[in-house]
Order: sequence, then structure tokens, then C-alpha cells
Amino acid sequence: MNVLVLNSGSSTLKFQLVRTDAERMRENTDLKLARGEFERIGGEAVYSFRAGDRPAVRGTVAARDHRAALDFLITWMAGPDSGVDLDTVGSIEAVGHRVAHGGERFRASVRIDDEVQRGIEDFIDLAPLHNPSNLKGIAAARSVLGAGVPQVAVFDTAFHQTLPERAHLYAIPYQLYRRHRVRRYGFHGTSYRYVSWRYRQLTGRTREQTRIIALHLGNGCSACAIDGGNSVDTSMGFTPLEGLVMGTRSGDLDPAILDYVANKEGLALNEVERLLNTQSGLLGVSGLTNDMRELLAEAEEHDDRRAKLAIELFAYRVRKYVGAYLAAMGGADAIVFTGGIGENAAPVRARILDRLDWLGIALDAEKNGRTTHGVEGRVDAAASRVEVWVIPTDEELLIARDTVRVISGLETRY
Amino acid sequence: MNVLVLNSGSSTLKFQLVRTDAERMRENTDLKLARGEFERIGGEAVYSFRAGDRPAVRGTVAARDHRAALDFLITWMAGPDSGVDLDTVGSIEAVGHRVAHGGERFRASVRIDDEVQRGIEDFIDLAPLHNPSNLKGIAAARSVLGAGVPQVAVFDTAFHQTLPERAHLYAIPYQLYRRHRVRRYGFHGTSYRYVSWRYRQLTGRTREQTRIIALHLGNGCSACAIDGGNSVDTSMGFTPLEGLVMGTRSGDLDPAILDYVANKEGLALNEVERLLNTQSGLLGVSGLTNDMRELLAEAEEHDDRRAKLAIELFAYRVRKYVGAYLAAMGGADAIVFTGGIGENAAPVRARILDRLDWLGIALDAEKNGRTTHGVEGRVDAAASRVEVWVIPTDEELLIARDTVRVISGLETRY
Repeated sequence: MNVLVLNSGSSTLKFQLVRTDAERMRENTDLKLARGEFERIGGEAVYSFRAGDRPAVRGTVAARDHRAALDFLITWMAGPDSGVDLDTVGSIEAVGHRVAHGGERFRASVRIDDEVQRGIEDFIDLAPLHNPSNLKGIAAARSVLGAGVPQVAVFDTAFHQTLPERAHLYAIPYQLYRRHRVRRYGFHGTSYRYVSWRYRQLTGRTREQTRIIALHLGNGCSACAIDGGNSVDTSMGFTPLEGLVMGTRSGDLDPAILDYVANKEGLALNEVERLLNTQSGLLGVSGLTNDMRELLAEAEEHDDRRAKLAIELFAYRVRKYVGAYLAAMGGADAIVFTGGIGENAAPVRARILDRLDWLGIALDAEKNGRTTHGVEGRVDAAASRVEVWVIPTDEELLIARDTVRVISGLETRY
Repeated sequence: MNVLVLNSGSSTLKFQLVRTDAERMRENTDLKLARGEFERIGGEAVYSFRAGDRPAVRGTVAARDHRAALDFLITWMAGPDSGVDLDTVGSIEAVGHRVAHGGERFRASVRIDDEVQRGIEDFIDLAPLHNPSNLKGIAAARSVLGAGVPQVAVFDTAFHQTLPERAHLYAIPYQLYRRHRVRRYGFHGTSYRYVSWRYRQLTGRTREQTRIIALHLGNGCSACAIDGGNSVDTSMGFTPLEGLVMGTRSGDLDPAILDYVANKEGLALNEVERLLNTQSGLLGVSGLTNDMRELLAEAEEHDDRRAKLAIELFAYRVRKYVGAYLAAMGGADAIVFTGGIGENAAPVRARILDRLDWLGIALDAEKNGRTTHGVEGRVDAAASRVEVWVIPTDEELLIARDTVRVISGLETRY
């Protein structure tokens, strides 16, 4: 089955075309036929497409909305010169959408119908930037491919709906949860599902045997405690602002700082919140960049104090979550690194887990150093009581597989 | 030396009269001569005084300000019928003040002079409720006892000035730290100094050998990682709002919740912050009370769902900090419980440390059960790799001793 995976932003559209079915899933032979993205949808959109392993095709196209962009994309894919192994537009048999927020209603991936669309609308309040964009993608796909092509929604939040009350409730008046749904939702659920599935595949463990601490360290960063295959705690909360230090987000913070900074700087509350989302994190501490690669280079080449400080703060905060989740679960079998930083920044991994032998965690420096840039593998030392893995994430693959499973009536909890 | 220890609130004044000196400190024979408090200063104040172990004397007195209250107190103490072992007003030889906030300037206790008073004024910004009240107490003592009686300030924040940057900086724009001093200060420092000193005394360890996680669980609650005798991390932050679940305070929270709740409930930012300080925590979750004893009773007698939930949330959040600080320090020798809940609520201690044997932590249920109500002792099981202690705190004693040490030119870092 050819599944088009879509991730729609307000003026962007990312896609992958994945060929998968029950047998390919079992044999792990899913095919990535194409991938790419549009930026600046709404005017002269910039695109970059890539068929299989071919070089990228880049260009611009007038695309007034997501519908126009998708129409252009599909025409390209089905065209004779694209190199995509697709005969006709009709060969796209299903669409899987990444959807940011499913509230407490969507605990798993679902086939999109009018009711599901209304559900996604209901949670715009909780994800004002993302859910409306995701709905644009859904409307565009229905319009371009027709109502006959099934569409599936895969929610970033769904995996964390297993969080027990002690982990998902805040210690605020309970009526704020009842009335306004203020609770921890967590995000990056698709990535966590992928790496925990992949971990089980690599180790031969069952769901029930997996007690792992997964660290998705990318543009956004979060940690997740996964016990028996279920998310039992995660560091992002009501929004993706909470938890770890990120590229431009502060993560955890004394809530009283908002009022203080608002008064001192003469800012409105939403302006302070924007500052915490866009001017903070690695960028805010270093005063330089939100890019961990640049920080590592600056620290190494110029011994830059604030670059080193940003890296140290970042690693220290991850380290504390590792400890917190060890305590939350009463131990762990493995720590799994994923995401751009988690997969590539070996020195950051080393710093996060430095001198944790008391806790039974020890890295193999050599293995850690060479497991980067898409390499998958185990990087703990022989003496380590806890396995440490680097597992490159593949959210698109999981979305494609979920799409097939939902359409075929198979269990998506895998 | 007779030291009057004062803790001044906006309309309250708590005191202890402590007889101590270098020899008594060494031999641990400090004497508590009297203790008590005023409430509702500003009008008809209510007082409760107690000389040694005598029954409390209660009454009311017109006290327009802290000076009037202190004048009344000292006249009572020096009077023939009080039972306080004090001949004359002149027998009070020094005053030690609990001061909330010493910013980054005061890293230790200091003798109060005009410059120190200006320093405390400088940090009113950071502790708008507490520092002005503390200054009232200082002014009252000078007025009643005269400038000849030395006064010493003991800061709640001073102990945490050893926090490394990775623990005291937030991941916000660095200029907010430079310009507005936004950083983690931490509180309960006097309590942590007391229990870590007492722990060393009980175990014969040196400062350098102490790596402990201290949990001050009282009205306010916080955790502290103490390495080599120094605070290296603590859960309260820029203000006492951050960190653990407390009686009425939320502790850790997604900062984005403030704007959302402000909009949903039509509240101003400072009103949301007040709600997080006064309507949240155990009270907010249970909808019942901020008192852990009442919650435990309600949970046991009526199996009340939300009382149990509040207790569970409370314990879970402490548990995560224990894990986080184990990771921060790369291990620990001991966990020390103190504060009203920490000293008395054995079931809460049990829940915090439940099933942590993987981390080398195991309670002895029987010892834990009987170590309450002022009893001091070790409560871990024989198999526990980490000691677990209950040590009733005594901030007043530490303030009295600091006062003597500062006046005598002795080192206060003990």
C-alpha cells in the first residue's frame, strides 16, 4: 500500500511517500519512495523533493494554499520524470497525517471522518498554532485525492494518554483540570512509539519487558518514561514549553518569573511567553545560536564560556530527568537517545551520562563516539547495568504503518 | 550568651530565647529559655509565650507595631513571674534575625549594620512580602534593646549561594539574569544547614564526606542536594513557588499554563500567580485542606479519592526529585527528612521511597513508623545502600549559634 504521510504547518508541508503493508511491516522492508517539503505556502512556495535516493529537485511554484501545493506535489510524483515508483495519482492509497493535539479524546490513531475532524477542531484551543494547520492538510488531501482515499490521524499526544494521574495532573485547583483541561499532555509521542518499538525489535524484548527512558533531543526536546510499553511520564506538559532546555525554549522555570519579567521589561504576559518559546533555551543562554552543532564547535574552537554554559545547562537538565524517571519507574532497562542532538551529538550524550556509575549507567566512549549520523546501536560499557542505545527516529514510518493498520482494522498498539 | 532569635512577618513575630556559646555548641548543651509568637500585630495582638517547658501563657495586647510587641515581650521575659531565666532586659546579649532574601550578596550570616540593612532593602524586589517584615523586626530590636546589642542576619538563601551555574541559571535570555537577577536562589537554607550539621554529628562524617539529599517538607516544601557540605541544587527557585507540591503552592508547572488560565478565567497575571501560591498544592488537588494530617485521615477513614490523589501527587513529585538529585550528584550517602510532614508523616515517607530498591534505597517499615513527633533516627533497612534519616529541624538553634559565631568572629560554615 502506498501511503502519503503529511505534516502540515501554517505555511509548510512536509511529506513522505511510504510503501508498506502487513508483510513489509513484519519483515521490516517498508520502502521510502519519496520525501520532501514546501515552505512559504500562500505565495511563491519553495519546494524540495527527493525520489528515493536521487538528488533533490528544488524549485518554486505559486501555491496559494495547501491544496495547491499538494496538487503540484502529486502531479510531480505521478509524472514520468519524477523517478517516484508511482504510476498514477490513483496509486496513492491512503494518507497519514501527523496531528499535534488529540486532547484526552484520542488515545490512538484513528481514521479521519467528520467527527474526528470536529474533534481536532475542538482541541485548537490547546494547540492554536498546530491543529489548524493539520486541518488544512486534511482538507487539502480530501480535495486533491477525493473522499475515496482513506485518511488517518496520528496524534503527537496519544501515546501519553496512559500517564497515571500522579504524572498528568498539576498541583493546581482541580477545577482548572475539569473546566479547562489543564493537565500534562506530552508530545513527541510518535517518536517515542517508534523508538520503543525499534528497541524491542533490536533486543527481542516484549512490550511488558520494556522499561526505558527515551530522550528525544531535537529542535524540541523531551524525555519519556516508558514502562511495559506505556508512557508513564514525560517532560513536555500542557504545552511543549515545559521540561528540558531546547533550542529556543526555556523548559522548566519558576512560574513566578513570568510576572516579574513582565513587570521589569514592560511586557504583556503573552509576550513573555513568546520570549520563553523563541528567545530562550540554548539561544538565550549562549546569546549565540539555537544549534547544538554550532555551540559544540564554538566551545571547542574558542572555549566560549557561554556556549559551554548552554551545553552544560542542557546536559544537566536531561541528566536530572534521567534520574527522576529512574525513581519514577523504580529502575530502567535502557536509556534510548533519539532526535537530531540525541542521534548525533556524542559529546552531549557523554556529558548527560557522565559519572553515573553509582546508578549503574556507564557509556563506552569509543562506541558512543562512532554512533552518529544515522548509525543505530548500543553504546553502553560492558559494566553498565542499564543499556544505552542510539536509535534514529522515524516518525513518518510509524505514521505510514499506523495508517495501514487503522485502515486494515489491526491493533495500532505495537 | 542569651540570644533572642526573631522571625518577623508582616503582622507576626515569632521568637525564641536561646542560651548558647562556644562551649555549649561543642557539647550540644544549648538551652531554650523561652519561645512564642505574636499574631495580628497592628491592632489587638494575640500572643502565646512559653518559658522552658512551662505551659503557654496566652493573652492579647494592644501592639500597634513590631516595636510595641517586642517591648511587651521583653518586659514579660525579664519580669519576675515569667519563669524565664533572665534577670534584666540587659541580659539579652544579641539578636539573631531570620531574613528571607540575601540575593547574591549575602553568602553567609552577617552582623547587621547600616550597609547590611540597605542590602536587605535592595532585595525587597526579590522578596516583597518577607524582606520588609524582616526589616521591621530589625528596627524594633534596635529600638527596644538599643544599638549596643549586636544583631545578626541569617539568610534563608545564603546556603544555596554555592549552587553552580548549571543549577542556578534558567534557560532564559542571559541578560534577564544580568539585568534583573532572575536565577534560582532557593530557600530553607537555615533548615538545610541545621540538618546537614546534625547528620554529620550523628554519623561522625566530615563535611567533605557528606553527600545527602535533604527534604524539607513542611508548610513550604523543598529538596536540596548537598555535596561536600555545600548546596549544589535545590527545588525552590527564583521564588518559593517552584519545585515540590506544597500545602497551597503548585510547585513545578508548565509556564504556558499561566497565560491560558489568565485568559480562560479572566484573571490578571498577578492573580493567577496568587492562585498558584494560595489555592493550589495539596489544597487545590484535594479541594479540602492544605494539611497533610487531615488528608491522611480523610484518605484512611473515608478512602477519599481526591485526598489520596493529593497525597500521591505530593509523594510522586518528591520521589522524582530524589532521583534527579541522585543523578545530579552521581549518588548519595543519605536521604534526610525534616519539616512537619517530613518528621511526622511516616506513610508519606514510605510512599516517597516505595520500591526504590533498584536505586539502593529501602526503608525499614517498623523504624519508619515509630520515628515521628520529634524523634530523631535512622529508618532505612539493613539492605539499604543509602541511609535514610529523620532529623527534626531546628532553625532557631542554628540562628542563635550563627549569631554567637558572627559576633565572636568564628567561622559560620559548620
